[in-house]
Amino acid sequence: MSLITGMKTIDVRFPTSRELDGSDAMNPDPDYSAAYLVISTDDADGLEGHGFVFTIGRGNDVQAAAIQALEPFLVGLDVEQVLGDMGKTWRDLVHDSQLRWLGPEKGVMHMAIGAAVNALWDLKAKRAGLPLWELLSAMTPEELVDLVDFRYLSDALTREEALEILRAAEPGKQGRRALLLEQGYPAYTTTPGWLGYSDAKLTRLATEAVEQGFSQIKLKVGADLHDDIRRLRTARAVVGPDIKIAIDANQRWDVEQAVEWVKALAEFDIAWVEEPTSPDDVLAHARIAKAIAPIPVATGEHCQNRILFKQFLQADALQVLQLDASRVAGVNENISILLLAAKFGVRVCPHAGGVGLCEAVQHLSMFDFLAVSGQRKDRYIEFVDHLHEHFLEPIDVHDGAYWPPKLPGAGYEITAGTLSDYEFPIGMVWQPQSVEA
Amino acid sequence: MSLITGMKTIDVRFPTSRELDGSDAMNPDPDYSAAYLVISTDDADGLEGHGFVFTIGRGNDVQAAAIQALEPFLVGLDVEQVLGDMGKTWRDLVHDSQLRWLGPEKGVMHMAIGAAVNALWDLKAKRAGLPLWELLSAMTPEELVDLVDFRYLSDALTREEALEILRAAEPGKQGRRALLLEQGYPAYTTTPGWLGYSDAKLTRLATEAVEQGFSQIKLKVGADLHDDIRRLRTARAVVGPDIKIAIDANQRWDVEQAVEWVKALAEFDIAWVEEPTSPDDVLAHARIAKAIAPIPVATGEHCQNRILFKQFLQADALQVLQLDASRVAGVNENISILLLAAKFGVRVCPHAGGVGLCEAVQHLSMFDFLAVSGQRKDRYIEFVDHLHEHFLEPIDVHDGAYWPPKLPGAGYEITAGTLSDYEFPIGMVWQPQSVEA
Repeated sequence: MSLITGMKTIDVRFPTSRELDGSDAMNPDPDYSAAYLVISTDDADGLEGHGFVFTIGRGNDVQAAAIQALEPFLVGLDVEQVLGDMGKTWRDLVHDSQLRWLGPEKGVMHMAIGAAVNALWDLKAKRAGLPLWELLSAMTPEELVDLVDFRYLSDALTREEALEILRAAEPGKQGRRALLLEQGYPAYTTTPGWLGYSDAKLTRLATEAVEQGFSQIKLKVGADLHDDIRRLRTARAVVGPDIKIAIDANQRWDVEQAVEWVKALAEFDIAWVEEPTSPDDVLAHARIAKAIAPIPVATGEHCQNRILFKQFLQADALQVLQLDASRVAGVNENISILLLAAKFGVRVCPHAGGVGLCEAVQHLSMFDFLAVSGQRKDRYIEFVDHLHEHFLEPIDVHDGAYWPPKLPGAGYEITAGTLSDYEFPIGMVWQPQSVEA
Repeated sequence: MSLITGMKTIDVRFPTSRELDGSDAMNPDPDYSAAYLVISTDDADGLEGHGFVFTIGRGNDVQAAAIQALEPFLVGLDVEQVLGDMGKTWRDLVHDSQLRWLGPEKGVMHMAIGAAVNALWDLKAKRAGLPLWELLSAMTPEELVDLVDFRYLSDALTREEALEILRAAEPGKQGRRALLLEQGYPAYTTTPGWLGYSDAKLTRLATEAVEQGFSQIKLKVGADLHDDIRRLRTARAVVGPDIKIAIDANQRWDVEQAVEWVKALAEFDIAWVEEPTSPDDVLAHARIAKAIAPIPVATGEHCQNRILFKQFLQADALQVLQLDASRVAGVNENISILLLAAKFGVRVCPHAGGVGLCEAVQHLSMFDFLAVSGQRKDRYIEFVDHLHEHFLEPIDVHDGAYWPPKLPGAGYEITAGTLSDYEFPIGMVWQPQSVEA
């Protein structure tokens, strides 16, 4: 028997605001950060579970403190028991009545639980010697539904319905695995579209995106309509009529404003409109979606939990579901969300970028393709070309696609050197001489 | 000119789990707690602003850390400027892009901002020499709408509509103030109804509640239907047909189960059904409300922000709005919520109990009666008979009513002795010999 012996949290921050990478209408100067967790055991295998919550700077310390608060729930437990029944492990964390009060199931405490759950999945996959997408895809439908908490979902998805979805995907699984290894999983790129970039930089990066084989790019909008029209005209001229262009307002608008703004941009053939308004506002999204149809509405990176996603699907308030690796309570909750999307026949195009989100969500999309929806058509994983070099296994994106990760684990592991150099505020990068450089 | 010079947070916990006070279907053993904040200035008046977030134990330290993270946003600022434009102060805190990522506008970070905002209102009221309800009621409609952030509200409530509501309440304000001082504001009591209490204790406390002049009591339900039927039969026999009985499921059910359970209890003449399911689930509440009508649905104590309340109102998903003093971002956001409720003609019956919530919400209901809805009919402030002795000015509840607080401030101030004795884990109460006593 081996025990969980440690939970170490690290406040890791990257000074991305110095270059305006990641700037958008709501987030003018993010410092991409990870409230990072390493779970250790006394097992002779020496394996660790790594997980994190992505934040954009200030408050990353609060997020790390919330993760650390979970230590009494995990340290001292039997590793086999914890990893052997990840459904129970998830429920024990999410349903602790006292911690639950701090959400419930939303915000800092819920994301902290997500980091812990993801670190445990990372450990489980490493112990199995498999990348997470392979580990999940090899599980039986019964094992997978045991990971899902159907409380608050039963009016939209029952355990039996989830089983049916998973069983229906069983037959073609091996064929799709071969396709995935041969063709990868489609990607779209946000790299050209940050709001802080000049038109020249947009032009250059959009040109490169097409050359690199991407069939969709995304532009940040919402600060100034005239600027948006000019930038979209520029981008459309550069990429031509066959490349899709999505736009992202990062929650900038109210309902009427969203509808007017999108209509003013519709001539540029919009692939989807992302986060037009508050991510909490199911009814507003439903109204916007109806008014701007057939342009699809996309949202999800700030969607707090499966209960909110359920309502978005029930109300036809989103047509593109953008799950996020670290916003909800980890892999288990994202499996619930993939099942909900499959039930409603809505395509999933995960939110990524930030730091480590690309490395993490690829596992979920690949698992979905193999074992849940069985679909890849019109689905893309977001790609942003930042900070991948800090990971043990950086994403492999080329020819417009993500190529399946090979290392055992869930993809969250940052290199030891980076964890030390970027630790805030004591790491090398955060010392005064570095800021001036 | 005086400056904000300090923000001190204290992790205050009361060992309420020892007596099962506060036990319900989701919260079997709460230790009522306050992540407590004291804001100090260098002004010669020596006044402090006190605020807190109510939690039920574990995680109170994380909540306190989130409040402390706001220090750089307030310390060093000019007191007059901060208190003189509380609308701007609120927006500066809530819309900080990096902190916002941790919600947005929900959970630990949003509640932390609520504690800071409330502490500033406490300070502002003390400087004015008025209890908060008097301070707010004396403000002009224009001053009040300047406190409200209409972002994400404009599809339900515009600034102009809010002004109309407030102007319409102006004429009768003085008359209602006289009524309030003469008759108090109606209260209902949850004291008899905790799930952990025996039938004998329920009988005794329900009898006392009627003797004390309460016209409504509330029972916790949702753990076991047979127990609930027996307890409701007992309570109804004790209080007779004229006293209202509300029930509270504390989020225990899914949609179908809620409808069946409530129908099984309907014979006992239910005043409202509180928190039948997930507090995030607008659509589920709407379906439940429709199915159990005319029994009203009540919710709000876990409602994360004004955007969610807006949707509940738009969808007719609640008929009793239970705002909470420390769940949302403080007095400003609660004014938004009172205005939304007035717009939709829905009655407000604040959630209270816990620790300090009664002391806090009474100011909001009294302000609403004087200056917003102008209504008191069928409205009650929740009353729970716990922990009031720890406050500088404990609530005055008698003859079934709350009587207006008189001390300057917002009601959040805990006595210095309690802050020291109950500080977790170093206070006297948390030492081993005390736990055994």
